[in-house]
Amino acid sequence: MRRSDKPQQPTSVGGGEKARLRDILFFPRSVAVIGQSNDPGKTAGRPLKFLRQAGFSGRVYPVNAQRGEVLGERAWPSVEALPEVPEHAYVVASIDSAMEAIKACGRAGVAVATVLTDGFAEVGEAGRAREARLREIVATTGMRMVGPSSLGIVNLRTGMLLTANAAFDEPNLPVGRIFAASHSGGMIGTLLSRGKACGIGFAGLVSVGNEVDLSLGEICDAVLDDPEIDGYLLFLETLRHADRLRAFAQRAATACKPVLAYKLGRSAQGRELAVTHTGALAGEDDVAGAFFRDCGIARVETLSALIEGLPLLGRVPAPQKTRNPCAAVVTTTAGGAAMVVDPLASRGVDVAAPSEATYGRLNAAGIKVSRSRLIDLTLAGARYEIMKATLDILTTAPEFDLIVVVVGSSARFYPELAVQPIIDSAGAGKPMAVFLVPEALQARAALGKAGVANFYTPEACADAVAAALTRRLPRLSSPSPLLPSGRLRPSSMGYRQGRGEGASPQAQTGGKAHSFATFVPSPLGGAGNRCGDLCLQASGAEGRGRTLDEFEGYALLDRLGIPCAPSTALDVNVTHAPALLFGYPVALKVLSSAITHKSDIGGVTLGIPDAPALVAAIAAMRTRLPQVGRVLVQPMIGGIGEVLIGYRHDPDIGPLVLVATGGIYTEIYRDRSLRLAPVDADTAHEMIAELQGLRLLTGYRGKPAGDIAAMAQAVAALSRLAAEPAVIEAEVNPLVVRAQGEGVVAVDAVVRVR
Amino acid sequence: MRRSDKPQQPTSVGGGEKARLRDILFFPRSVAVIGQSNDPGKTAGRPLKFLRQAGFSGRVYPVNAQRGEVLGERAWPSVEALPEVPEHAYVVASIDSAMEAIKACGRAGVAVATVLTDGFAEVGEAGRAREARLREIVATTGMRMVGPSSLGIVNLRTGMLLTANAAFDEPNLPVGRIFAASHSGGMIGTLLSRGKACGIGFAGLVSVGNEVDLSLGEICDAVLDDPEIDGYLLFLETLRHADRLRAFAQRAATACKPVLAYKLGRSAQGRELAVTHTGALAGEDDVAGAFFRDCGIARVETLSALIEGLPLLGRVPAPQKTRNPCAAVVTTTAGGAAMVVDPLASRGVDVAAPSEATYGRLNAAGIKVSRSRLIDLTLAGARYEIMKATLDILTTAPEFDLIVVVVGSSARFYPELAVQPIIDSAGAGKPMAVFLVPEALQARAALGKAGVANFYTPEACADAVAAALTRRLPRLSSPSPLLPSGRLRPSSMGYRQGRGEGASPQAQTGGKAHSFATFVPSPLGGAGNRCGDLCLQASGAEGRGRTLDEFEGYALLDRLGIPCAPSTALDVNVTHAPALLFGYPVALKVLSSAITHKSDIGGVTLGIPDAPALVAAIAAMRTRLPQVGRVLVQPMIGGIGEVLIGYRHDPDIGPLVLVATGGIYTEIYRDRSLRLAPVDADTAHEMIAELQGLRLLTGYRGKPAGDIAAMAQAVAALSRLAAEPAVIEAEVNPLVVRAQGEGVVAVDAVVRVR
Repeated sequence: MRRSDKPQQPTSVGGGEKARLRDILFFPRSVAVIGQSNDPGKTAGRPLKFLRQAGFSGRVYPVNAQRGEVLGERAWPSVEALPEVPEHAYVVASIDSAMEAIKACGRAGVAVATVLTDGFAEVGEAGRAREARLREIVATTGMRMVGPSSLGIVNLRTGMLLTANAAFDEPNLPVGRIFAASHSGGMIGTLLSRGKACGIGFAGLVSVGNEVDLSLGEICDAVLDDPEIDGYLLFLETLRHADRLRAFAQRAATACKPVLAYKLGRSAQGRELAVTHTGALAGEDDVAGAFFRDCGIARVETLSALIEGLPLLGRVPAPQKTRNPCAAVVTTTAGGAAMVVDPLASRGVDVAAPSEATYGRLNAAGIKVSRSRLIDLTLAGARYEIMKATLDILTTAPEFDLIVVVVGSSARFYPELAVQPIIDSAGAGKPMAVFLVPEALQARAALGKAGVANFYTPEACADAVAAALTRRLPRLSSPSPLLPSGRLRPSSMGYRQGRGEGASPQAQTGGKAHSFATFVPSPLGGAGNRCGDLCLQASGAEGRGRTLDEFEGYALLDRLGIPCAPSTALDVNVTHAPALLFGYPVALKVLSSAITHKSDIGGVTLGIPDAPALVAAIAAMRTRLPQVGRVLVQPMIGGIGEVLIGYRHDPDIGPLVLVATGGIYTEIYRDRSLRLAPVDADTAHEMIAELQGLRLLTGYRGKPAGDIAAMAQAVAALSRLAAEPAVIEAEVNPLVVRAQGEGVVAVDAVVRVR
Repeated sequence: MRRSDKPQQPTSVGGGEKARLRDILFFPRSVAVIGQSNDPGKTAGRPLKFLRQAGFSGRVYPVNAQRGEVLGERAWPSVEALPEVPEHAYVVASIDSAMEAIKACGRAGVAVATVLTDGFAEVGEAGRAREARLREIVATTGMRMVGPSSLGIVNLRTGMLLTANAAFDEPNLPVGRIFAASHSGGMIGTLLSRGKACGIGFAGLVSVGNEVDLSLGEICDAVLDDPEIDGYLLFLETLRHADRLRAFAQRAATACKPVLAYKLGRSAQGRELAVTHTGALAGEDDVAGAFFRDCGIARVETLSALIEGLPLLGRVPAPQKTRNPCAAVVTTTAGGAAMVVDPLASRGVDVAAPSEATYGRLNAAGIKVSRSRLIDLTLAGARYEIMKATLDILTTAPEFDLIVVVVGSSARFYPELAVQPIIDSAGAGKPMAVFLVPEALQARAALGKAGVANFYTPEACADAVAAALTRRLPRLSSPSPLLPSGRLRPSSMGYRQGRGEGASPQAQTGGKAHSFATFVPSPLGGAGNRCGDLCLQASGAEGRGRTLDEFEGYALLDRLGIPCAPSTALDVNVTHAPALLFGYPVALKVLSSAITHKSDIGGVTLGIPDAPALVAAIAAMRTRLPQVGRVLVQPMIGGIGEVLIGYRHDPDIGPLVLVATGGIYTEIYRDRSLRLAPVDADTAHEMIAELQGLRLLTGYRGKPAGDIAAMAQAVAALSRLAAEPAVIEAEVNPLVVRAQGEGVVAVDAVVRVR
């Protein structure tokens, strides 16, 4: 057995570790199929058949312990018996033989093993133990691994079809410039075959399986320098190894290679499946949305948009910041176009009428259209010169980011009328997305050939347009520490306790650095409502870490620069009221890190009018809750509304910040906005603008407007916890929002630290 | 010129007026194409070409005022010059000639004219005047009319292609058993061509245009007895002529012919287009939803589901009442199946795991599946006998309404593995819906041939499944008058005014017949919040009719059986407080039918503690609002929540009843449920269960539960206004909901009558 040394397959440009990974994954000079069956009807019989069908020019070694010949070719009994060490081994044997073969590959110095075999994490304890053994082999031998449960890895350009996916069983595979990666093995065949049907081709595809070694992000990253790859399609089940995915997405953005993703688990039922299926935990869908946005990955909701959307994405630059994306819709059939407008509108894309200037140009060109969101050429006539002149004007109109062209029945048999002018405008200023309303395969093929994005369904068209227009450039910088301490030491978080002297409540609430907090009752739903399944807390890893008490929590918020009103901690056995930093009426709360739902257990008393009443209230609480040692006194201060702000270090995707409308309805309507932390004030404003309930704080129906700027500052401040690895999660609920110019006040704080 | 008397086209069975209409529309013995052009590339050149291409065997008369020959055939100069009176004329001339020709058709005794020509309501005033003239011709001559702006009427079985739609320009049109009707002309070509691509064929298609005479519902109804038609596809832009559509849908349900509809205007932007495009007003989308549900029409959200869904609908019986629809999802590819589960869940279909009994049967058959919502055959193997045995068990499992089968890559080249068993189970107990994940045209064709509903996209599959499982049998009865008076006489609505003697407030609020009302302040958002664009009022025809004052409104509610607490009307100039039927504290409101937003103008004073304070408050209100003559006094009575209930006679679809969560958040989250009125208490309960915000009144997080039964009774009672043509709209906002067993109380009432 000798090392393979004569490259039969020229590798692409570039060197170093990543180029080496790319080459052994996608340009191996020799491959072994371990467990190759002699029955081409069986899954394990397919890889050799496919490799030969596709004309792979590298050396191929079938390995079969039982037979000296498979599918008419010589077979070897084991990896050790091969005449050379193959660069890439595809293991399709059953579980026990597979484990032995993988060990043998590692020993022999195989560069990468892709493992089809299943029987790992998805089957429970025994499977997880097998995965641990795989990791050990990788760690000790340096062999890299794709899978297990990988349905394959494919380079269509070289015919390297290391796959058992039945959809690859044909000679005319659609070679193109897209790379596809999927958590679900079956989907590589789906992307391939559906892509072929609509003229979309692939450079390579990979089913990443359980990702015990190489993750989806790493594999995508390995081929980033491949000059024959223009963009990426991702089919995701989880955000496992999100850090790798993010690093890849950032580099892809820099390389101007767009990334389009579909992720399962939009619904709770769907997420449950993801857990059952792969053993991986799927987070809530808007967490995934925040992640994609932050990474600059465009996300679609429909399968068709995933397959058909990349040509569009390649034409639409990702904006750094949102402005309302604005599309023109021009059509020869109003009803057909309206089918695209509805889902566009529901995905937040503004379908706008042309500007006065653009109307002027249309009129000057003799094109009769009525003033409407829809540029309807029905009356003008579905003729070449009409459509061409219209597109010439629209693709150079500054008010539009993108032109959606919807062509009616003529597209089927008379493409020269309204489809050809689109093709002839393909190089024009603004990107175009096309929906041909009737079945019109030939016209679609012609559009595809001209590089014009076109879609089979109105929903996919709208989906891809919205995904293209609403994605962002990824954030490239990682969060830098903002707190002077660098690392939070919760055990030493000092705070001063009020003793009656000092500033007035106003100064305390308006000022910057103070160590007190003010309790303000909720004007909408009573004090101390916890957020149930809405809040970050509930989805975090319960039970880990230590919860700070409310007072310690305020100290942390104070260091972040989030205004907290004054607050005094008292022993529950006091027999007279101390002089307070603030006036009556006051609120009384139990102070204990063990109690997070204070009001549910009678741990909150509001509106205490004077000192004797305070003493009585403390006594009553002592009787009611004998386990409690300390209480907190705060002034009653009202605002004009309240919000919930929160921070969590998500195990998959890292630091997250959240803002949600406050009060009990919030939980019911799940009205919240999420981003990866940290965020600046601009992004915080954007988050606030996404909340429907926050309309109540922006001067709704003559009500006073709240201090949105202060709210945004508080969100941004809380998000800076991203630089504090000690903090697992933090939640302010409520943050009381006062009138414009009067700031916000944190009125409760729950913080959990490692 | 003589009447055509020799039927060349055998008409289908049946007689009478409707059969006659069916025959002249779809089985004419002679047709004229008026304005037929000699240029087959022009729109007006197509009908003759298409008729000949399709081999129409009836007599065809091209009419062209300029030429004696068109497309190589003899042409006549006018309708009058024809050798016989054609049964059906298709008018494709330009507007002025068309108007003349239509007149001539009417005079000559043409049975039906279908008018392609545009230049009617969609172009404004002059166009509307032309439509009026068309109506006059119809009324005076008895000639029926389809259009104007009808892109055609087609009977594929006889080759009667009276259409100018470019997508009909081919010889092999897909003949089948579906009838399609569309407001949008282009869509008949879309349904035809896309249907053909997926094996769906049509008996006939019609573009109904502006519906000046024959409406979409009437045309569908005319072919209901056609034994070669199995079901209907509707593409709707508005609910114009909803009464006709409803009558048709009711008869279609009786005839077991399913009706599947797609309606534009889900978004506000989309509705705006509908207005611009056809001149018709489009109502809000949930109003349309209530209408479809009431009529038993299944509604889909995607174009593909419209085209592919009817074979499924034909297999799924419409339930009379909801139970949670429950689907099994069985698959050979978990990732592919999860793409269907997500949109199913978001459309309210429960994807359930098999019962213990069903698991037992699967185990007994040797089929290994893990316990999950997804019946995943990956481990068991995608083989014929596995899939067949699984389907045998699932299609006879009582817990499922429907089986969704999702087949992975094998479907493309190995349909014998997992697709053939579906075909072999096609006649089984439960209906099946199939999604083939890869591109698999041949397998789809085989499924289609076997009558198994299958879908190109996962979204369309879920959409059609949800539409099939959530539709209802139509309500066949029309509302009967429930008020003894039969017709409301608002001018004589008497009420007694309290004078201090009589029952206690409790008796008044709990009792049945009383003429007073109690004002209760909103605990969540202040009293008297109006509902803005949420309420029925705003969407009604403002300005018509007379608004009752609040006192008269209570009298109406009282007659309907909706509890109203006591209330006393006073002259604003009183100088001493009268003895009240109820105790202090009280609320004071202005009483004027001219003022609907009382609290906005300072017309409400709450919590008045005693008689002197009441006199002072009245005096203050007199000063503040000098235009007001009377005030209303009511006790302060709180509840545990509030809702809005409303009734409106919608100009399109008739009486509607609504329930929405109360308070200011309601308006922001638009949390409401609508039905056609009247509804019974069961339906009212169903409506209440649809409101997210109402969770607050059903014992949410330990809060007291509200009197849901009383709320449902009030909704049902208000809905009985459907029998009162005098009432245009009525709204109770808020209806205070008290604790379980304590009832509800109407606390404000706005009623508008003719």
